[in-house]
Amino acid sequence: MFSETIELRGHIIDSLILPKVLDQILTHGANFKIAEIKIGKKRADQSFARIEVSAETSEALDELVLRLRQHGAEVAKPADAQLAKAPADGVFPSDFYVTTNQQTFVRFEGKDIEVRPAMMDSAIAVDRKKRTAGIRVVPVQRSTSGTDLFQFINAIVDADEPKSAVIRELAHELERARKAKGKIAVVGGPAIVRTGAGQHLVRLIELRYVDRLFAGNAFAVYDVERALFGTSLGMNPDLAFARGGHENHLRAINAIREAGSIAAAVQKKVLNHGVMHACVRHNVDIVLTGTIRDEGPIPEVTTDALEAQKVMRRKLADVSHVLLLAALQHSLAVASMLAPTVKTVCVDIDPSAVERAVEHQPLQSIGLVTDVEPFLRELAECIAKSEAKPGDRKKQ
Amino acid sequence: MFSETIELRGHIIDSLILPKVLDQILTHGANFKIAEIKIGKKRADQSFARIEVSAETSEALDELVLRLRQHGAEVAKPADAQLAKAPADGVFPSDFYVTTNQQTFVRFEGKDIEVRPAMMDSAIAVDRKKRTAGIRVVPVQRSTSGTDLFQFINAIVDADEPKSAVIRELAHELERARKAKGKIAVVGGPAIVRTGAGQHLVRLIELRYVDRLFAGNAFAVYDVERALFGTSLGMNPDLAFARGGHENHLRAINAIREAGSIAAAVQKKVLNHGVMHACVRHNVDIVLTGTIRDEGPIPEVTTDALEAQKVMRRKLADVSHVLLLAALQHSLAVASMLAPTVKTVCVDIDPSAVERAVEHQPLQSIGLVTDVEPFLRELAECIAKSEAKPGDRKKQ
Amino acid sequence: MFSETIELRGHIIDSLILPKVLDQILTHGANFKIAEIKIGKKRADQSFARIEVSAETSEALDELVLRLRQHGAEVAKPADAQLAKAPADGVFPSDFYVTTNQQTFVRFEGKDIEVRPAMMDSAIAVDRKKRTAGIRVVPVQRSTSGTDLFQFINAIVDADEPKSAVIRELAHELERARKAKGKIAVVGGPAIVRTGAGQHLVRLIELRYVDRLFAGNAFAVYDVERALFGTSLGMNPDLAFARGGHENHLRAINAIREAGSIAAAVQKKVLNHGVMHACVRHNVDIVLTGTIRDEGPIPEVTTDALEAQKVMRRKLADVSHVLLLAALQHSLAVASMLAPTVKTVCVDIDPSAVERAVEHQPLQSIGLVTDVEPFLRELAECIAKSEAKPGDRKKQ
Amino acid sequence: MFSETIELRGHIIDSLILPKVLDQILTHGANFKIAEIKIGKKRADQSFARIEVSAETSEALDELVLRLRQHGAEVAKPADAQLAKAPADGVFPSDFYVTTNQQTFVRFEGKDIEVRPAMMDSAIAVDRKKRTAGIRVVPVQRSTSGTDLFQFINAIVDADEPKSAVIRELAHELERARKAKGKIAVVGGPAIVRTGAGQHLVRLIELRYVDRLFAGNAFAVYDVERALFGTSLGMNPDLAFARGGHENHLRAINAIREAGSIAAAVQKKVLNHGVMHACVRHNVDIVLTGTIRDEGPIPEVTTDALEAQKVMRRKLADVSHVLLLAALQHSLAVASMLAPTVKTVCVDIDPSAVERAVEHQPLQSIGLVTDVEPFLRELAECIAKSEAKPGDRKKQ
Repeated sequence: MFSETIELRGHIIDSLILPKVLDQILTHGANFKIAEIKIGKKRADQSFARIEVSAETSEALDELVLRLRQHGAEVAKPADAQLAKAPADGVFPSDFYVTTNQQTFVRFEGKDIEVRPAMMDSAIAVDRKKRTAGIRVVPVQRSTSGTDLFQFINAIVDADEPKSAVIRELAHELERARKAKGKIAVVGGPAIVRTGAGQHLVRLIELRYVDRLFAGNAFAVYDVERALFGTSLGMNPDLAFARGGHENHLRAINAIREAGSIAAAVQKKVLNHGVMHACVRHNVDIVLTGTIRDEGPIPEVTTDALEAQKVMRRKLADVSHVLLLAALQHSLAVASMLAPTVKTVCVDIDPSAVERAVEHQPLQSIGLVTDVEPFLRELAECIAKSEAKPGDRKKQ
Repeated sequence: MFSETIELRGHIIDSLILPKVLDQILTHGANFKIAEIKIGKKRADQSFARIEVSAETSEALDELVLRLRQHGAEVAKPADAQLAKAPADGVFPSDFYVTTNQQTFVRFEGKDIEVRPAMMDSAIAVDRKKRTAGIRVVPVQRSTSGTDLFQFINAIVDADEPKSAVIRELAHELERARKAKGKIAVVGGPAIVRTGAGQHLVRLIELRYVDRLFAGNAFAVYDVERALFGTSLGMNPDLAFARGGHENHLRAINAIREAGSIAAAVQKKVLNHGVMHACVRHNVDIVLTGTIRDEGPIPEVTTDALEAQKVMRRKLADVSHVLLLAALQHSLAVASMLAPTVKTVCVDIDPSAVERAVEHQPLQSIGLVTDVEPFLRELAECIAKSEAKPGDRKKQ
Repeated sequence: MFSETIELRGHIIDSLILPKVLDQILTHGANFKIAEIKIGKKRADQSFARIEVSAETSEALDELVLRLRQHGAEVAKPADAQLAKAPADGVFPSDFYVTTNQQTFVRFEGKDIEVRPAMMDSAIAVDRKKRTAGIRVVPVQRSTSGTDLFQFINAIVDADEPKSAVIRELAHELERARKAKGKIAVVGGPAIVRTGAGQHLVRLIELRYVDRLFAGNAFAVYDVERALFGTSLGMNPDLAFARGGHENHLRAINAIREAGSIAAAVQKKVLNHGVMHACVRHNVDIVLTGTIRDEGPIPEVTTDALEAQKVMRRKLADVSHVLLLAALQHSLAVASMLAPTVKTVCVDIDPSAVERAVEHQPLQSIGLVTDVEPFLRELAECIAKSEAKPGDRKKQ
Repeated sequence: MFSETIELRGHIIDSLILPKVLDQILTHGANFKIAEIKIGKKRADQSFARIEVSAETSEALDELVLRLRQHGAEVAKPADAQLAKAPADGVFPSDFYVTTNQQTFVRFEGKDIEVRPAMMDSAIAVDRKKRTAGIRVVPVQRSTSGTDLFQFINAIVDADEPKSAVIRELAHELERARKAKGKIAVVGGPAIVRTGAGQHLVRLIELRYVDRLFAGNAFAVYDVERALFGTSLGMNPDLAFARGGHENHLRAINAIREAGSIAAAVQKKVLNHGVMHACVRHNVDIVLTGTIRDEGPIPEVTTDALEAQKVMRRKLADVSHVLLLAALQHSLAVASMLAPTVKTVCVDIDPSAVERAVEHQPLQSIGLVTDVEPFLRELAECIAKSEAKPGDRKKQ
């Protein structure tokens, strides 16, 4: 049997770090002995555990310890880690350390250097050629304040649960974020426009509650179609039954291409309302990305996926809150790029979409299984009401 | 080859009767020759087709014709049909005719006698012992008026489509039903209460827009729990995060059992608000049925499924409109009992639930894939607004 | 502040008991101090924690402690609990203790008396009138053996994960259960018959791997329709496209009603194969229950829900393993009646159905999101192969 | 009232062309008179209808007729259509005709010129500047042969329906396609590899039943991970419970990047089995496209969406059958690019994914709601068995 001693620090019990670590050990067929444990006597106190892990082979032990470190376990006496040269540009040495998006330090020349940005599923490049390094990961831990909307473990509000109180709390959270100069991003799917919720998003933009908008070509085109023709896939929202064709959709693309861009269409007064118009008017950054399902696309769309990922990472770097609204593919891409401290709210009518989106930020996410139109309507109303009471806000 | 001549009458093309009949013939490996066809020159005109159907065996032809008759095909020279004695009570002769819920006539002593009620998947009992009878079915045909909410073939409003216009139209439809003395039934699931939509249903009840309420034990218990304790499975809707236990649910059952019944609990002022209370106060018929998943149940619940079916059929007999709200199992049971002229609206957040519920009344149903709370809120507001304008209503 | 000291014992960390208890305390706005904690040094060792819980009101503290006890927390000095007389038959005193399905003891005359059967969501009746009683709950804890199929926390095999290895393990588990004289129950939905998986279930029955079959009227009727006419809702499985009517379904019901019962139909050789036939031939207990959606029903069906619940509880009392196969409503009913030590396997093509079914037995369930037909085919093949190798079995 | 006479030809009744045209007229609030109708007396005969359409405004009539033409309606005396110059490269004149993917002709200098390729949602460029053109669309009509797997209107095999017969029929269809030198494309999602179905796809490739493979970066990486490490997201398929991390996934990407490409990795014997390996060995065209969710990507992936669309259209041009396997986003993209005569089979465990994929080819699609692994296993077995019988094949 080969063994190694690891240490855990922080809110290791109620943030489920200790149970997860023990679970991993058992799942890998290894064994453990708890050498020491001190549990914080109040909920704000930190806890500590020292655990001796043993496995049958040295390789199994190494692999297990590597995994435990991703949960924040530290090896008591840091094992030597070797830096290796990359065989080629864009290629890693074959046994590279796979990163997490948790705060990460590399022990290098006796000091802990923070890896920036902490990014999931990558490797760490160190500038100078050195021989040893220990890697230390500090997982985000559950808030212990007891007043935080995002503090709950399984924070999905199901289809058959009430949403009004959560939406009200969320409005307060966004107000606080606003005052704290946090940047708010919206990731939006076409259903926002198609269900008639575009007007509510415009309201949030006008109230300065949106700093970035991430969407696909389709979202922008639906919005322009609605602004230019009053339809959505040819359907008139005032008489929802005039179902029809796809022509206006294509004419909308054509109109923007003729104008040169969305911004140009706003300037030329071709595009006079809608979400895109509001974004241009209120300096909201629009990040539009393309897929193989796109028609057109319109000029602003970044069609190359690699280029789009770079733009997205850059525009997400200073964001503190993200609303993921009826946009599964985009939401999963965005969620995988976030720092673990960013708070996310996911709204979708499909329960499995909500589950997949919130699991990226397990202690920082709220998911609501609901129709996006009433959600945005209620959120915009809450915020507008609150903003209209300047006296109240001073008192807060 | 064996052949038979059938005739079709009515809006056989735009109600898809002719295509369905030809489809059936091809699907059964049979052949057809269209002997005569007259198509109505205006949309209100009736059409007519005479078709010679041929199949390889006499049995295959008989089986096919039987099926075509369920789509309204009439055999040109009615074949003799034999009445047979039932072998025992509750047992049919082995080759009985399986009924539809379309208007049905039995040719008996040279006259067409209407079968009442027309009921799906049963057999026809004829009073006296006679030897021959032809059966004639008159399918409901699509409205040709062009102004009817229910006239469209695939009337499902998807998750990403706007609902406001449909809800407004539905409000008008219910107002018209109200004036025409039509009875309106609601089939409700627990999600109505759990999402906080109970208050909107109460509003509809107070406005006299609900004549019957069909639900399960769970719906009633959730409603009572909310009325007595302000919770839903122990969760407080004003602070949706106080997730909790199941105790209040059981205490609610206990309270009703102690009072003796829901009506008694209202009378004794144990139960002072909520949907059940409103039903008792406004004489809405409550039909509660039981399942093997029930807790309690409370005294009003009919626990025997056969007895429950009888009560349901009786309480559905004079209904003209049914709202199926987030209650899949109940909705399917109710929908299978309706006359084909009853109009139904199905609301559910699960698209497949909506599809299954509307397919029972294909030309008389609207389905909305949405959260039930905002749906009921908007519907109640529309109706309340409209009812508040007596001047407008006179002009209508 | 009011406070109380509670104690936890067992595998309180890796069975998530301690985290859950702390979570509950925080969620209720209460506070805790960990007075003492001893964690088992090896994975088979038990752990212990003594926690001081404090809340703002005496009521809040009582309610919280009540809830913590359901997770197995014991109050250090058992508080006095009052027995109270039931106001009427079927009615509990208003502040009754709501039971769990965990092993439960009532402290009565200084001794711990076990409550039998431990049943969820009920109250405890004590025979004689005594004044004090402490209630103690012993939650099932995660197996620490490391070889158990059911030991994993989130044991759902998703649609995009491989199932073959799990099915093989399950076959071994059932073989072990068989040798240990455990009773195996199947809860089956109509999709088993409709997809053509009935033959695989028959194989399991013939191999003596099914002791009880729980199903609804529809399951039995589909099976009989298939046995008598080779169809499923009129559709011929060998030429899946001969879609059709509902008649054979009704003729199947009629045939059983004419015979008097399923058993009589087997005896009279009216029913010569299929699942029902195999059950009768191999003395599998059939428990058929009714719903308001039933047609017929056939004579064996218990149509009263209360009566059905009683039969189900009785027939589940000695069961050690339950397969919940494509039968959501039935599965939820059955799962709510099981002792927490019963192992369940849930198979359904709908991921949310699987999730809902497994959450009743969180440490004893495996869920597979898959088509029921290939699942049963593979399971029956695995077991048949293994049973065919008597030599191998001896060596095991 | 403004009116126009249109004509319909072909299998206009059982292919639902006439009902759809009448439906469109009513839905647009217009009116019709059927001036003449001749219905084919046998099922192979063509039918004909001449219909006078009238609407209240000239614009409404024009818009309606435009839409009817997309269903194949021809205007009796072709109205003059104006060619217009494109305002700029990539920009259409503002009232361009929106194309369908049906066979389309432009009347130009008195002759009908076929538009190639017929492509959905685009405009038609005519080489020389001419003044008039009538557009004629010839919709695909339902097969009347009665033996075709793809001839049915709503060809979705639901979760609770049997699949074996359909899979067997599909195997025959693919064999016929193979003999007729039709090209077969597979659009595959990662679930194929993750569920262990990669081996069945390899078998189909070895039997020469796959000419093109369309997939995303993730599919290729999962396949390589499995080939190199035997895992899927770190999970070992032989012991499905060894759940784990994401590292092998990234190491797989790294290995291919180091080799230079998939083909190079095969040549260098780095990659020795799996789907990608089989494609390289058997000259299957691999078309890999990228999304913003990709990790890596590996070198073969086309990351630009516009470039990817061009490659896809080119590689789909000569395809006669497409299997869409557990790959919703890709399937929708591919389906929108197909000629209406291409036959598609969609397999997915999610019913709504199947519905969305088949609606693109309404008379040429089969959808199966099932797990992809047993589907591919059974299909590969059917084909392998059939290919193993050379005598039988000669007789066919």
